[in-house]
Amino acid sequence: MRVRVGIVGCGTVGTGTAELLLKNGHLIRKKTGLDIVLTKVADVDWERPRSFEVPHHLRTTHYTEVIEESDIVVELVGGKGFAKQVILEALEKGKHVVTANKHLLAEDGKEIFLKAQEKGLWIGFEASVGGGIPIVKALREGLSANRILNIYGILNGTTNYILTRMLEEDMTFDEALAEAKRMGYAEADPSLDIDGWDSAHKITILATVAFGKFFPFGSVHVEGIRQVDLLDVELGKELGYTLKLLAICKRVDSEVELRVHPTFIPSEEQLAKVSDVFNAVMVEGDFVGKTMFYGRGAGSHPTASAVVADIIDIARNIAGGIRALHPFYWEEEELHISSNFYSRYYLRLDVPDRPGVLAKVAQVLGDNGISIASVLQKEKVCRMAGREGQSVIPLVLLTHKAYEKQMRKAIEEIKNLPMVEGHPVLIRVEEEKL
Amino acid sequence: MRVRVGIVGCGTVGTGTAELLLKNGHLIRKKTGLDIVLTKVADVDWERPRSFEVPHHLRTTHYTEVIEESDIVVELVGGKGFAKQVILEALEKGKHVVTANKHLLAEDGKEIFLKAQEKGLWIGFEASVGGGIPIVKALREGLSANRILNIYGILNGTTNYILTRMLEEDMTFDEALAEAKRMGYAEADPSLDIDGWDSAHKITILATVAFGKFFPFGSVHVEGIRQVDLLDVELGKELGYTLKLLAICKRVDSEVELRVHPTFIPSEEQLAKVSDVFNAVMVEGDFVGKTMFYGRGAGSHPTASAVVADIIDIARNIAGGIRALHPFYWEEEELHISSNFYSRYYLRLDVPDRPGVLAKVAQVLGDNGISIASVLQKEKVCRMAGREGQSVIPLVLLTHKAYEKQMRKAIEEIKNLPMVEGHPVLIRVEEEKL
Ligand SMILES: NC(=O)c1ccc[n+]([C@@H]2O[C@H](COP(=O)([O-])OP(=O)(O)OC[C@H]3O[C@@H](n4cnc5c(N)ncnc54)[C@H](OP(=O)(O)O)[C@@H]3O)[C@@H](O)[C@H]2O)c1
Ligand SMILES: NC(=O)c1ccc[n+]([C@@H]2O[C@H](COP(=O)([O-])OP(=O)(O)OC[C@H]3O[C@@H](n4cnc5c(N)ncnc54)[C@H](OP(=O)(O)O)[C@@H]3O)[C@@H](O)[C@H]2O)c1
Repeated sequence: MRVRVGIVGCGTVGTGTAELLLKNGHLIRKKTGLDIVLTKVADVDWERPRSFEVPHHLRTTHYTEVIEESDIVVELVGGKGFAKQVILEALEKGKHVVTANKHLLAEDGKEIFLKAQEKGLWIGFEASVGGGIPIVKALREGLSANRILNIYGILNGTTNYILTRMLEEDMTFDEALAEAKRMGYAEADPSLDIDGWDSAHKITILATVAFGKFFPFGSVHVEGIRQVDLLDVELGKELGYTLKLLAICKRVDSEVELRVHPTFIPSEEQLAKVSDVFNAVMVEGDFVGKTMFYGRGAGSHPTASAVVADIIDIARNIAGGIRALHPFYWEEEELHISSNFYSRYYLRLDVPDRPGVLAKVAQVLGDNGISIASVLQKEKVCRMAGREGQSVIPLVLLTHKAYEKQMRKAIEEIKNLPMVEGHPVLIRVEEEKL
Repeated sequence: MRVRVGIVGCGTVGTGTAELLLKNGHLIRKKTGLDIVLTKVADVDWERPRSFEVPHHLRTTHYTEVIEESDIVVELVGGKGFAKQVILEALEKGKHVVTANKHLLAEDGKEIFLKAQEKGLWIGFEASVGGGIPIVKALREGLSANRILNIYGILNGTTNYILTRMLEEDMTFDEALAEAKRMGYAEADPSLDIDGWDSAHKITILATVAFGKFFPFGSVHVEGIRQVDLLDVELGKELGYTLKLLAICKRVDSEVELRVHPTFIPSEEQLAKVSDVFNAVMVEGDFVGKTMFYGRGAGSHPTASAVVADIIDIARNIAGGIRALHPFYWEEEELHISSNFYSRYYLRLDVPDRPGVLAKVAQVLGDNGISIASVLQKEKVCRMAGREGQSVIPLVLLTHKAYEKQMRKAIEEIKNLPMVEGHPVLIRVEEEKL
């Protein structure tokens, strides 16, 4: 069975995908019995040097040729404008689609999936989350018997690299970012990564797959790591926690928390040990318990591995003559996004080194229904922060679980205490469930 | 679309599978559009208390009733005799099969798979390796675009628990085994686990899936952990290594190494951090690079999660009317099992504390073409081994890579050196590739 594949956008992932199809085509034929043929690759610029030379007869600058000559159209342009046009045109012309475009799917996924559904066509998007890690398939098929309870993801390699360098080499955020740029792990404008948007796109897609429902991207709570202070990374380490930019999707009854923010997790957790540019997704299901999927979250070859896995799946369906799809958005019950998160907190205040300060802060927290789990010892903090003998020292508190609203109110009051200097630092702590 | 499922064997996994199908049936219907109905469960003894009460009208003591009344027969009896009969009878009667029986598949898989192939029927066996971890699907589908290079698995929870206790709590093997029994992690007769057979069954199955070829089970090299000395666990830790019972499937050109043995791996590796009863499989593919899959490798609920994932996949195929299967043993090239492994070694000898001993041992290794990478300092070893002032002390050497044959020959010569007491301890070290 011959299945024709065309690629639109021959950049990092497009080039890797062409290379994989051409290099492993023979092996794939042996494994699957499918003859998957690359028919055309479109890009605007064929002069630019690439890591792999796409054969001349496959090159074009007209994406419409790709759509014409393929059964499966692979969109690897990125962004929301032209990419969306390519996908919708392909679907309109009855072509199946594979894409790695998390940005587009997180924001306009509903329109695209409904269109594909209407047309009875497949959309593969494994590569949009976790690079080469087959996490979409795991959620949709491998763990399909489970009610999914929680997803915790380290979904962005750039930020994980930076936080790893801060933790292990005592670098500041700026130093670690500069190094990430030197290593090619951060783009010239790294804001999509650093400010948490990329992770937010990915967790939105995973939430859709896990709960069968489209969640508006605007309802995801997003904080990045730009403000992370090395002092807190180090104080957290001392307390037994590792700071990660965690993407969280957590079900509590009929509510779902969807959030991305710097998070302290216990250092002995498997997820805490995911370092450098690696990604990992921890999924908890009602029967399977905790599972974790780990690997390279980006890069030409790993991402191509996921793109081609989707191509193979769709080709198998084409060969099998399967057209009727069951929509994967099945959750008719009302699942709401919750914004009043319930978690533990790490709180650091800069306060004068004199008696009574802790009592005052504890009083405010107590008045807001928040109880303190532990306080980091004064001398230790001073030594670690290199602030011995200074008049203002950090005071670190770990709270028990509290609602976000309570905590925000308490923080406002604490900020107004006369002895508190600067802005309190508040970092959520995830425990138990991980 | 209604698909009928019956279970033969209602023990740990069978009970969990019945529970899952009955509790999550509604959710599965919403997710997949498939109406998967449990029609019958067979067991010899219905008096025994179970963690879940199978409804009376589903119970039978005749497995033939299960085969009659199902489209998919789930074999969860275990063992090789009766289980094989159930599977072959089900296939003969045109029923698809799901099984968790690693023992049977590793030893008689070829016969069973060929029979299913001949009949155009599906066999699901996700639960046979790694409990709830969807590793078979990852290898067959998620990573299908890759040429698989290596698989490293921690595939047995009992042995991983014991080694974790030895490492973290300085327990001897016997103490840790006793604790594992108390915790219900080890059976009364733990030899299948302890002696490496269970891991060997599982790596044989993964090798078949990865390389599309049936390897005779007898050709797997198997060593268990019964002989592991706490001293070596501790000396390894000092050198930066963690001891694991690793199941290894490694491709070198047209040869495959298939082996299970205690192995030192660098402590900072993700796999080294898999502790207690958890399982993990590290897969390296030519495009995806390193990926890891982690979770509970056993237990009623996690294993049921994998069994039902297979049921859903097969039900989807039944509903889609797909019968023609591409065989998953595709590798026509000659792939041979290699027994002359190539790896690094940790070597411990008990020798008198006097000059010249190291030189003699180094001489023998050198004569056999093996070079020494490092020697653990004498004083340090004595202190750690609690043997200060004794006349016989441990001498620890780490070698560079060498062939097994060279090493075995060298060991024979070293054993015959007059100053070497007792039996030298030899443990393979896996680095680089992990
Ligand atoms: N890079 C990764 O590791 C990675 C990982 C996971 C997912 N993704 C996703 O994969 C997608 C592609 O990413 P990428 O890193 O491969 O991006 P990229 O390197 O920027 O590649 C995009 C390519 O599309 C080409 N292009 C732009 N407009 C076009 C048009 N009108 N017609 C034809 N080609 C056009 C670009 O050409 P010129 O640059 O020559 O103009 C460029 O070669 C994105 O959605 C991204 O989010 C990437
Ligand atoms: N347990 C795990 O966590 C796990 C994980 C992965 C894979 N597996 C595999 O799953 C399979 C089942 O394991 P398990 O732990 O569930 O074993 P188990 O608890 O011993 O269950 C086997 C059941 O089969 C019943 N049985 C024996 N002969 C029978 C017959 N002739 N007709 C009907 N029923 C019969 C047994 O009944 P009686 O005992 O009452 O005689 C028992 O209830 C094995 O292949 C195992 O390797 C187990």
